Formats: sequence, structure tokens, C-alpha cells
Amino acid sequence: MSTKKIPHRLYLTEEQMPKQWYNLRADMKEQPDPIINPATGKPAAVEDLYPVFCEELAKQEMDDTTRYIDIPEEVQEMYKIYRPSPLCRAYNLEKALGTPAKIYYKFEGNNTSGSHKLNSAIAQAYYAKQQGITNLTTETGAGQWGTALSEACSYFGINLDIFMVKVSYNQKPFRKAIMETFGGKVIASPSDTTNAGRAILAEDPDNSGSLGCAISEAVEKAVTTENCKYVLGSVLNQVLLHQSIIGLEAKQAMEQLGEYPDVVIGCAGGGSNLGGLIAPFIQDKLTGKANPVIRAIEPASCPSFTRGKYAYDFCDTGKITPMAKMYTLGCTFKPSASHAGGLRYHGMSPILSKLYHDGYMEAEAVEQTKVFEAATMFAKLETILPAPESAHAIRGAIDEALRCKETGEEKTILFGLTGTGYFDMTAYMAFNEGKMADYIPTDEDLAPGFAALPKIPGIQE
Amino acid sequence: MSTKKIPHRLYLTEEQMPKQWYNLRADMKEQPDPIINPATGKPAAVEDLYPVFCEELAKQEMDDTTRYIDIPEEVQEMYKIYRPSPLCRAYNLEKALGTPAKIYYKFEGNNTSGSHKLNSAIAQAYYAKQQGITNLTTETGAGQWGTALSEACSYFGINLDIFMVKVSYNQKPFRKAIMETFGGKVIASPSDTTNAGRAILAEDPDNSGSLGCAISEAVEKAVTTENCKYVLGSVLNQVLLHQSIIGLEAKQAMEQLGEYPDVVIGCAGGGSNLGGLIAPFIQDKLTGKANPVIRAIEPASCPSFTRGKYAYDFCDTGKITPMAKMYTLGCTFKPSASHAGGLRYHGMSPILSKLYHDGYMEAEAVEQTKVFEAATMFAKLETILPAPESAHAIRGAIDEALRCKETGEEKTILFGLTGTGYFDMTAYMAFNEGKMADYIPTDEDLAPGFAALPKIPGIQE
Repeated sequence: MSTKKIPHRLYLTEEQMPKQWYNLRADMKEQPDPIINPATGKPAAVEDLYPVFCEELAKQEMDDTTRYIDIPEEVQEMYKIYRPSPLCRAYNLEKALGTPAKIYYKFEGNNTSGSHKLNSAIAQAYYAKQQGITNLTTETGAGQWGTALSEACSYFGINLDIFMVKVSYNQKPFRKAIMETFGGKVIASPSDTTNAGRAILAEDPDNSGSLGCAISEAVEKAVTTENCKYVLGSVLNQVLLHQSIIGLEAKQAMEQLGEYPDVVIGCAGGGSNLGGLIAPFIQDKLTGKANPVIRAIEPASCPSFTRGKYAYDFCDTGKITPMAKMYTLGCTFKPSASHAGGLRYHGMSPILSKLYHDGYMEAEAVEQTKVFEAATMFAKLETILPAPESAHAIRGAIDEALRCKETGEEKTILFGLTGTGYFDMTAYMAFNEGKMADYIPTDEDLAPGFAALPKIPGIQE
Repeated sequence: MSTKKIPHRLYLTEEQMPKQWYNLRADMKEQPDPIINPATGKPAAVEDLYPVFCEELAKQEMDDTTRYIDIPEEVQEMYKIYRPSPLCRAYNLEKALGTPAKIYYKFEGNNTSGSHKLNSAIAQAYYAKQQGITNLTTETGAGQWGTALSEACSYFGINLDIFMVKVSYNQKPFRKAIMETFGGKVIASPSDTTNAGRAILAEDPDNSGSLGCAISEAVEKAVTTENCKYVLGSVLNQVLLHQSIIGLEAKQAMEQLGEYPDVVIGCAGGGSNLGGLIAPFIQDKLTGKANPVIRAIEPASCPSFTRGKYAYDFCDTGKITPMAKMYTLGCTFKPSASHAGGLRYHGMSPILSKLYHDGYMEAEAVEQTKVFEAATMFAKLETILPAPESAHAIRGAIDEALRCKETGEEKTILFGLTGTGYFDMTAYMAFNEGKMADYIPTDEDLAPGFAALPKIPGIQE
């Protein structure tokens, strides 16, 4: 380990920035199970994806052999406007906790989208532009992905329709406003603009929406609109590929400091940030170079890793997408309305699901009041108000650091701070006023066939 | 000039960060006129300030001889959590404008307060803590200063009462929420908690507030509360001192790139950012080392430089503070309710007023729809959604770059991007929907004795 003083924030130089993404699948001994066309029951071919996805992105989706994929020049140029993101040492947090652990975080919130989502949004908009696509559709939950994609589409001159989960749409008028500032068109989902939306509203006119439902609408809109494709900000293999820049930069910066993490912690919804952050560390595990603990932190109110089934399921509520083998709560699951922020997807990235299933990573579910306690503590000490999603990872890092305090272990912890909470003040207000509730799905809340899932250790047992 | 590729963002290393603030007054050939105690008509002594200000800050306020003042270790440590801020090259903006000019900006928004205000907030809270002060009061307009000071007080364990201009308080519930998250207590001003507030409400129960009024309330609260002092985020000499870190870092980063600005542009409300940004460049002018153009951009709806009188005036509406010689619209002036964001103070930093009066800098007033046009253009190109205040400087930089396009001059422009606009979405929504109005004060709007002020060139003439 280096003896020099470790700075509070380390930025790589522009020259040091990664010029290739890392494709984790190339190092996996066993591949995730293929996505399946539900009509045929057979694995989908890359061509099967072209009606929905941009071709280059569909190829990236299916590519499990190319270890490093060049980041196109124009994408690199855009990355340079807001990257590299800093690797930060949480000195104040360490001191306040009285832990012997060293806590690092990779901060992805220093851009107007407010999160890491811009890393993939730029790539996806770029490939769409290259293909001559003029229209994109997508969905957004908390709004970070929608904001990021609005920014990217604005830059590349692409029209964008965003289906925003209704509960977020209503709670976050300013999220909508920022997407509109960048030219995105925002539609509350479920909406009456698609068959999928109308079907859900017919059954339940007050349906407050879910990511799964918004995906159905966005996919339907894409395939029924001329020169239009669908893009997604999480879950997909291509997204994890683009997000690998987080982990690559983090690892490189730690190496520069003579550091290597004992524990890598990320929040998990669909897996975009987690998959990107942990990619090069999983590589070390897969290749036998190192063996850090990798830990996903997810909401107890949407606990796909810790309570889901590892099974083939639809990626959307309307069952119009292919099926993926993943940890899932069932495609009709939606988290309680009391659940704040993102991390509300019923399933989980197939890559991460496979790694978790094969024992390469752990997962832990936490309740949101505990998450906001961690968020508020962190904000006061480290001067960054975290997004509720990111605060799950903070909670995980604090818990790990407190365990180190008990055992005296001087572990090196790295966590992903994916974004900022400026558009989540309604949730912070609820927390400040003692009005925030915790909720754990009951058997009744779960999709048919998903009842009697395992209990969450430490919370339900 | 260096031939190497200039990066999009340059961060100094932690070791390169300034360890001293620069006190511009030490190099001024003629000093700003002293502040005057209105009761005696005589210049105030440093002791006269102690009932209101922390002692060390009062000393800094009066110190016009010490050129460099050490930044205390603990303040340096806090700076390192969010600094150095990047010097950015606006390549995309240059390209979109088709200008031969090079556009640089110093971005101060990468911290949760969302602006440069944290630079002085930390210093002021630190000195209060050192003196054993347990309570502080302040005012805030747009909310950036209140947020910054809440963060700083939370860190140093000081209670804070924030008088927030009522129109902002009502428009920005989330600004209030973030201050409360950091433990600040927020009161809409004018309030019924002070004599000053009650007097204003008695005359006009619907008074929507002004910075001048909020200052009266905060000062009154400070002098009537035990172990309580008043702090201010702009206008004062001490604030410009602390903010000099912006200019010092910017100049150092430009030197590292082999660059020097031909034009330095900053937005101006009370002068905190502008005074900090331009300090080392004004030094070059004062000492004959260089002669860059220095330009303040202010709102046409609150045009103290371009339409104000250079005269002694109260710093607050309630006339309980000392009087300062400054460009002022009269201490009872308040901008139209249609004016969005900050930059709403009736006066201007006495240091900047003197420099302007003596011809060391220029000033320009711009209308807010033009400002939001610039803001939106910048956001789309540079992926940062600017605060309305900061967007005044963007407007100035764009206008300068467009002049360069006409003349073919390859000027190097540096502007200050003070903060982000995440809490200003109401204003962006008004702009997006075509509902934003411009307003220029009429003679009737001006304070008694301030009618028939000069017209704004290019707007009123």
C-alpha cells in the first residue's frame, strides 16, 4: 500500500480515461441463460431483436465473447464533458463512525442527469443516430434514466418519448420539467396511448404504474412508430457493458493509490450501476486474480435478489418482451406506493442474476428508513445529498464499516454513489417529518406463482 | 500558448489547491470608502461590528492591508471534500456558436449546496465555531446561500435560522426541504418574528420580500439572541476574500494550460462569485501585469451597476445596518415578482462598486428570457443545467463569443458557472412554456431619490 496521503477526491486525467468498455461475459465460465422468444420457446437470435433495438446495441446484447469493445470517438468526447468521475475517500464518514475501515466511493452524480445513467444513454443515443434512427422510446422510474436519455437525445438530435411510472410522475413534477427542458416528451404510465397501458387501466384505473408496465408501453410505442427504436437504462447486457466504465475508472484510480477493495458494494434495482461498478472486480474473481466480496444492496420493498425466484420471466408487465432468466418477483409485481425513489424493477440483470446464483456475489435487503438515515448522515458529513437509490449502497457501506469497528478489521470498502437526490426532496421531506414508512411485500402482493418466497434475513426473521 | 490538447475538464490536484485567500484590497490603489455608522455619521471601527459579526470575520472585513490570509487547516480539509472545482473548456458550445473564441468556465456547482456559496459558508461557520458561537442567523434569496450555510453549520454543530425571501420560499419548497435536511430552520421573510418584519408587513401585508428585508430580520434576530451572530453570503469584503479561491484556482489551472483570459465574465448580484472569480485578474490589472477585460452581467430587473447610484446606502431595507458606499437602487428596492432566481439585491459589493467606479471593470444588464435561452442552449451542449444566476454569465460569454465570430478575434473567454439549477425548475418550466416575462424597473419602482436612473444601453435605448 502506498504511504502517500490519499486525497479526498481523485480524478483520473482525460488521457487516463478508459477507451474500451469491458464485457464481463467474455470471462464468465458459465453464460447467463439465453433470452427466449415466448412465441417459439426458443432462444432469440440477434435478428429477433432488430425490430425493437438498434442493431449495434442488439449485437452488443448478444455478444458474450468480445472482452473489450471500443468506445466510439464521439461517445468518448461526450464522456469527457462530465467524466472522469471522482474516486472519493469518505474521511469524515470514517471518523464519525469510528471505524478502522477505509471507505471509498465512486461518485457518478456530477452531471445534470444526476446519475451514472448518462454513461449508457450517450452510447445508446449515439448508436441510434449512427443507424439513422430518428425516434426513441423508453421508460423511467425515479427519472434519472429519462433525464440522462433526454440529454443524450437532445445532443444527437433524436426525438424521445419517455413513459414515466405514474407515481413518480405525480411526485416529481420537476423531474418531468428537466426532461422537457432537454426536449424529451414525458407520458405518465400506465397511459391510454398504448394497448398495454389501456389494458392495465381497464383492470385498475388507479394503477400507479411500475417499470414493467412502462416498458410494455415504450416497447409497443417503438414497434408501432416509424423509424423508432426502444432503449432501456438498466437490466440489459449492453447497459452493463456501457456502465463498466464506472468500475474500470474506479479500479484504475484505486490502483493509482495503491489500494484494492476487500468489499465492493452497490445498490441494485435492475443492475446498471452495480454491474458496471463490479465488472473489473468480478473479472479478478473469475480469473483468480483476487477475491473481493461483492455485495448488492436492494430495497426490502422490492427484493428481487433476496426474495425472488431464479426463473424465466417476462421483462415487462404486459408480457410483450422476450423472457429472461433472472431473479424476479414476477412481472406483475409492483412495489408499495410508500417505496421512494427507483430500484423498483421486478427482475434483475440476467448477468448479475447468474453471478449471484453461482456464488460470485452476495445480496442484502434494507428498509428505506434505514436507508434515509444513512443518506442524511452521509449528506451532513460528505456534503453530497445522495439519491435514495445510491443511499442503499451508503447503508451497506456503513453497516460494513460498523462491523469492522466491532471486529477491528481494517477493510477497504468501495461503494458506488450513483447519483444525487435533488429531485427526491419529497421523500426527504417525508423522512425529515417522520412520515416515511417501511414496507415488505406480503405473499398477497407477489405475482401469482411467487407467493411464499424466502424471508429477508435480519428483517423478517 | 501550449500546443497540447486542452482537456474538457481540468482539476488541480489536492496539493495544488490554494492554501491562502487573496485579499484584493491590499493591491487597490484607492480603497473603497469605509462603512459608516448611521448614528454617528462616522466610519465604523472593527469593534463596532462585533455585536453583529464574529470577531475574526469582522477583522477580515476591515483588513485592507494583508494581501494573503491563511485558510485555516479545518477549512482546507472541508474544501477538499468538494474542491478543487474543475476548469472546463466549452468545446461543444464553441462549435455550436461557430466562434473562433475559446470559452472556459470555472464550474462551482459540483457540491450539494449547488453553488460557490459553500466556499464562504464553511469559512464563516468555522470562525463562529472557533469563537464559541452556538447560533447563527442569515438570509437567503434563491436559497443557495441558505443551503450552503446549513451544510456548514450542520458540520460544525451550529444552530441556524435562515430568513428566506418569501417569494422564493413559496416558489421553492424543495429548497426549504434541503436546508431542513441539513438542520437549518427556515422562516419566510418578511415574518412576524422580528420588529423589522412586522413593520414591513404592517405597511404591506402581501409583501413578497427582498434580500434587504431578510437581512434586517436576520440581523435583528442575531443581536437579540444569546450567543448568536449574523452571517452574510455576499456583498461583504470577507465573502469576496473567501471566494477568491475560485479565481486563484481558475488562474492556476489556466496557467497550467498555457492560457490567460482576454475577457473574464461573471454574474453579479451582491458580488460574491464575481469578486472571487476576478480577484487575481484584477490584481494583474492593478499591478500592471496584464489587462484583461472584466465584465459583470446583471439582471435588467435588478440593475445596480448599470442603473444604480454610487452612493452611501443602507445594506438592508429596515435601515438597521451600517451604511456602505456602493452602487445601489435604494435599500427599499425590490425586483418584480417576475424576476426568477437570485441576483436580487438592491446594492453591490463596495469593493466591486469601487473597481467599477474607477474603471477596472465593465457591467452589462441582460433580460431574463435571453438568460434562459442561453441556459437551455448551454445545458443541451455542456450537460450542465445552470442556475438562473449563473446563466447570466453564460449569456455574457455567448454574446462575447458571437462578437468574436463577427470580428474573427480568437479571444480567450473565462466565465464563472456558479451553480446548478435543480431547484429552479419552476423558472425553467415558465420559460419552456413561453410564460416567462421580462421586466425593467420603471421610475415608480425605484426607491425614493432613485427615480430617473440611467437607461440600460441596448435594452431601454
